Amino acid sequence: MKIYDISMEITHDMMVYKNREEKRPHLKTSRDFTTGSVYESIITMDLHTGTHMDAPLHMMQGGDTIDRQDLSKTIVKCKVLDVTKAQKSVSKKHLENKDIQKGDFILLKTRNSFEDVFNVEFIYLDKEGAQYLKEKEVIGVGIDALGIERAQSNHDTHHTLMKADILIIEGLVLKDVEEGEYTLIALPLKIKGGEASPVRAVLIQGNL
Amino acid sequence: MKIYDISMEITHDMMVYKNREEKRPHLKTSRDFTTGSVYESIITMDLHTGTHMDAPLHMMQGGDTIDRQDLSKTIVKCKVLDVTKAQKSVSKKHLENKDIQKGDFILLKTRNSFEDVFNVEFIYLDKEGAQYLKEKEVIGVGIDALGIERAQSNHDTHHTLMKADILIIEGLVLKDVEEGEYTLIALPLKIKGGEASPVRAVLIQGNL
Ligand SMILES: [Zn+2]
Ligand SMILES: [Zn+2]
Repeated sequence: MKIYDISMEITHDMMVYKNREEKRPHLKTSRDFTTGSVYESIITMDLHTGTHMDAPLHMMQGGDTIDRQDLSKTIVKCKVLDVTKAQKSVSKKHLENKDIQKGDFILLKTRNSFEDVFNVEFIYLDKEGAQYLKEKEVIGVGIDALGIERAQSNHDTHHTLMKADILIIEGLVLKDVEEGEYTLIALPLKIKGGEASPVRAVLIQGNL
Repeated sequence: MKIYDISMEITHDMMVYKNREEKRPHLKTSRDFTTGSVYESIITMDLHTGTHMDAPLHMMQGGDTIDRQDLSKTIVKCKVLDVTKAQKSVSKKHLENKDIQKGDFILLKTRNSFEDVFNVEFIYLDKEGAQYLKEKEVIGVGIDALGIERAQSNHDTHHTLMKADILIIEGLVLKDVEEGEYTLIALPLKIKGGEASPVRAVLIQGNL
């Protein structure tokens, strides 16, 4: 079995959404070896830091929280789709020539995977693309950008997916992964009342 | 396949080590629907919150950090051992009648699993027990307490395990899990420079 780590490193200087300072994680040492025999630290981070899973509450009042996420959807067969040809957004036309079946968990590998700094014009999944995946009855969608959508004032992509109970993972690192089938593991922390959680996401090739 | 969630819920009122207030996580809402169309929050937490993995830096100056953890040891076959008979600590005598093989990842189910509040006299793995597991060449040890040791001023258990490159997971929830073989998934967040990380740990029974 081969494991692909598809997670961003969490550190103060990492890529954060729209380069907002308040989105940067802080790691503070609370004990160290100068005064004792243990090293301990405390992290402060936005729940949407790096590679993370959104829960419905992120976009829908009264929506479900991340601690209630069904874990059977977070250890699943998945398909990585190469949509690096998409220039602005991933739309229906980039998806309809792909083999997408009911129950699939789809990860979108776009040109974002080859960028190291936050690009305000990142490639996103547009409303038509989200609608198409909903019709295909996928169970989840992941993307290699810190957002699955942008420039849609009504948050159409999030709403289309969330209302259909389709999981959303953002901030994937897919540059070293080829199009194909894998097992995805992306378990959220059990943060009570949280609208999202950072995840350590991996892809497995072969049998466990 | 059946998934057992063996992770603690992360919330302000959860069990924390020695009931220390500074160990309690804080979840702060940064945006909500009263002023906008999204809900977002920021968490502040000790890296040893709830179910978590320790890295060598926690106890050894210059030790490895959690972002460098080999992930192949965090998606592995494991054995849950019922050592609920241990009254003070899990020692060699509780382990030597169990089937422990080289390369095993061992999870210790103790009386701790049936307690809801922090017990200063929690069951731990003592020096002899750690030494025995080291001789057996296990690759990891997990326990259902917020610490794998207590009342050992030299941190003998941590040092014995860490020097032998044996992974440590603390804060497991094993009350609903029977002794037996499973696949353990316990991936740490990729926190650069961190001496530990919360994990969403699960056990899988059957094939993925
Ligand atoms: Zn998000
Ligand atoms: Zn610890």
